[in-house]
Formats: sequence, C-alpha cells, structure tokens
Amino acid sequence: MVDLITSPANQTLKGLRALHEKKFRRADGRFLAEGLRIVAEAVEAGIAPEVLVFAEGHAGHPLVARLIATTEASGGLAIATTPAQLGRLTLKDNPQAVVGVFRARAVPLAALDPAAARLWLVVQAVKDPGNLGTILRTGDAVGAGGVILLDDCCDAFGTEAVRASMGAIFTQGVTLTNGPAFFEWVRGRGFVAGATLDDAADYRTIAYPAPTFLLLGNEQAGLPLDYAARCDVRVKLPMRGRADSLNVAVAAGVLAYHVAG
Amino acid sequence: MVDLITSPANQTLKGLRALHEKKFRRADGRFLAEGLRIVAEAVEAGIAPEVLVFAEGHAGHPLVARLIATTEASGGLAIATTPAQLGRLTLKDNPQAVVGVFRARAVPLAALDPAAARLWLVVQAVKDPGNLGTILRTGDAVGAGGVILLDDCCDAFGTEAVRASMGAIFTQGVTLTNGPAFFEWVRGRGFVAGATLDDAADYRTIAYPAPTFLLLGNEQAGLPLDYAARCDVRVKLPMRGRADSLNVAVAAGVLAYHVAG
Repeated sequence: MVDLITSPANQTLKGLRALHEKKFRRADGRFLAEGLRIVAEAVEAGIAPEVLVFAEGHAGHPLVARLIATTEASGGLAIATTPAQLGRLTLKDNPQAVVGVFRARAVPLAALDPAAARLWLVVQAVKDPGNLGTILRTGDAVGAGGVILLDDCCDAFGTEAVRASMGAIFTQGVTLTNGPAFFEWVRGRGFVAGATLDDAADYRTIAYPAPTFLLLGNEQAGLPLDYAARCDVRVKLPMRGRADSLNVAVAAGVLAYHVAG
Repeated sequence: MVDLITSPANQTLKGLRALHEKKFRRADGRFLAEGLRIVAEAVEAGIAPEVLVFAEGHAGHPLVARLIATTEASGGLAIATTPAQLGRLTLKDNPQAVVGVFRARAVPLAALDPAAARLWLVVQAVKDPGNLGTILRTGDAVGAGGVILLDDCCDAFGTEAVRASMGAIFTQGVTLTNGPAFFEWVRGRGFVAGATLDDAADYRTIAYPAPTFLLLGNEQAGLPLDYAARCDVRVKLPMRGRADSLNVAVAAGVLAYHVAG
C-alpha cells in the first residue's frame, strides 16, 4: 500500500529532509540516497530501502515499480509525493525520480577479515565528500575489501558522498576508527603502504604483499608524519609538473589500480 | 600604488564578482583565481594577475607582498579591500587572503605541437567543473602537453574548475574544439586511445606510441560510439565490482600514469 503525501507540512518528509544534516543522521541512524541508479544499485546489492519516496506518476516506470515492490516486500514504506515535495526533499530544483532512505551501517574494525581482499583503502581526515565518495566508487571498481576511515573524515553517508559513490556506499564496507587503533589492529594482519612525498619510493618499485592497506592522508596536509613513519612502506607518484600534488581520489585510483594489478 | 576599496557599491569589485558567471567571463575575457596558493602558482608559471585583490592587513605577509609587487611590476592593479568585501567577491564566508584576476587564454588546436609531449589529455562533454579541474591537475602532474576539450564541456576558467586545478590552469594549455575538428587534426599527428567499455582492450595490454592522446567522454554517457570508432584503440579499466564505472577524473589519472610511465 503506497502512501501519497502532498502537503508541504508533512512531518514524515520533514524528518527525512533533516537527514541531509550530519547531526540528524547520527541521531536517526539512516541516510538518503537519491536517484534511480543508486537506489537500484542498493537493491542489486541486496539492500532494500526502509523508505522509498518517489514522484507520483512514476509508479508505472518498470524500475520504479520494482523498487516499490522490493521496498514493500522487505517491510519498508513506499511514499508517492509531488515533484515539488521531492524537490524539497532532495534540495534540488530538478529532483531525481526516487529517494531511498537506508540504514547507515559501519563495519567495526574488529569485524574485518583482512584476508577477504587483496587490497583495502584507508583514508585519514579526508574532508571533501566528493573525494570520499569517489574513493568508495574506486574501491568497488578494484574489488577492494572496503574503505577504512581514520580520524576526523567527512561523513561517508552524507548526501554528496553517497552521490559521488554512485552506489558503492552499498557495496564497499565503511569502517570508522582512528590512526592509533588502525595501526595497532593492522600489525601482523597486513602490509601498509602510505602515500606521501617525503622519504618515499616510486610506487612502481615496490612489491605489495596481500593484503595491502593503501593509506592516503588529508587533502591539504597529506599523511601525518608519525602515521607515515608507521607504514611498512612510503610510496609516491612521480610529479613531472610544476605543482607537487594530485587530487587524493586520483592518487588513490592510480595506486589502487597498480596494486590490484 | 595600492587602491583601497571598502564600499559595497564599488563598481570595480562588482564587475569582478560578475566573473563567477560564464556569460560575463566570455564577454570580459578574464577569470578569477582564489587563494594564495593558486595565485602564487600562476606567478611561478610567469603569469601575473591583471588585478590582485587582497584583504587589507595582509599586505605585510611576505608572499602577499611579493604578489602585489609582481602584479604592479607587470602593469596590473593591486586592490586592498575589507575581508567582508573579499567575501562578497569570492562568494564565501571565509574568503581566501587574495583573489587574482587573469586573462583566460585558450590555445588554438592549430597552434599545438603534438611532439611537445608524450601524452595529451582529451575530454569530451565533461560537465563537472571539479572533474575538469582535477584532470588539469593530473595533466600537470604527469607532464601532459595540455588538455583538449571537445564539444560542450563545462568552463575550464570557471571558479570551481580553477580551484580544483590547484594552479594547473596556468601550466596546462586548454584547447577548445569539437570532435570532428579534433579527429581531422590528429590524423597523422598522434595515436588516439579512447576510454570506453565497449569493444575495448584492457588498458595494460596496449603499447602507446608517442604522442598519445587519451580521450575520455562525458560523466554519464561516456564516449559517443562514433568517436570511439574513430580512435586508434579503445581501452578499458578492469571492473571488479558491482558497478561498471569509475569517476572520469580517476579513470583519466589511472590511464595517464600508465601511459606516461
């Protein structure tokens, strides 16, 4: 049974709109994923939305109909609303046809099986949600075991990170921890390669035993020196230009494709 | 002689603020670059701002002082203003210390020397200025000859692209053309490798003669089929995840580092 909501004052939609803000996501435990493509990726990955909001008139679209059926079959709620309401929910003038509301699940460090993948991505204090989402997307593409977030990163479940992940937020596990806990845990469990320009070898000259944990630092500051010192190896990409830096998601992509082979 | 401008109604600053909009940039021929780091990169590359706007009180900062001197020595105008005015100019609450106004110069296709570099980056209808700026930044890092923009791309001289380029807008030439003109020009001048998933070889199995032109398509649609057909080779990155795509700037980075060697 699909609900139809058209009133701007509707409390359900207001509550969902609040999920754009990190503090409400934290309190609520759910996050928003906008667009048919990303919601369909979630369902493909076996994850149904708890709530599916869609523009009335789109219920006949085969994919929307399937998402509605999947949502309801798993005990979720499907809500039809007006394009205007959907625009208010997505904070966009031209909203997507659907918005899914999902449970935000982080994977505890202790629950990770390092041997489950050849490669893991680890980022420290990455602040740009577009970068973080892009790194999740790359993690999916290279078959990484998951993405481990150290220290004060931006929220992987924020709208912009979810959008940039193009669905990888549903296929890549996200682990939230800090540097000391990570280095303590990883000892004896894997090989840590830190990306840094100081005291680092050309990334192509290194052998990367499995599992390798690729560690990249903050967009501005790079890896903290003491983190770099605790890595098994420090690697850099050749810089042939005037600037001496790459976008962190690009650096992660180059290194990840190299290590994944 | 440094001007000091504090009035919100000042026409000079109003005119500069309009440069955030593409139509005014087109009419004016100049663009904005925000922040000490990017303006300093420009000066390093031998390009002085036509106008340098800085927050009063920062004139004593050694780097700001040097930028002011460079601007004036090259016949440009240095303008001191209030942090509030600088915030209005940059559309930010916490503005950078300086904003540079530069002449937007595209390099005509006919003026390119293909032999000047091992690798050139070519993008088609890329719409996201963050992606385009990131690709410029990667072009600088790998020592590409420049970035060639086909068809209806976003503006490389827009504020967001310039910011994401981290100064590479001043070191990488930007060429604006269209697909047919590019393919006509490149015949006999270089090897074109198009990134696409259809009928494509693993990128690691190909030899890339110099100069190679790496061609990547639009974020959503990828390369048009007829463009892919005109490439000397079609290459793809292995996709081991559930999704079948990478961020275009990440794909460009992986391919560019592979080809640049």
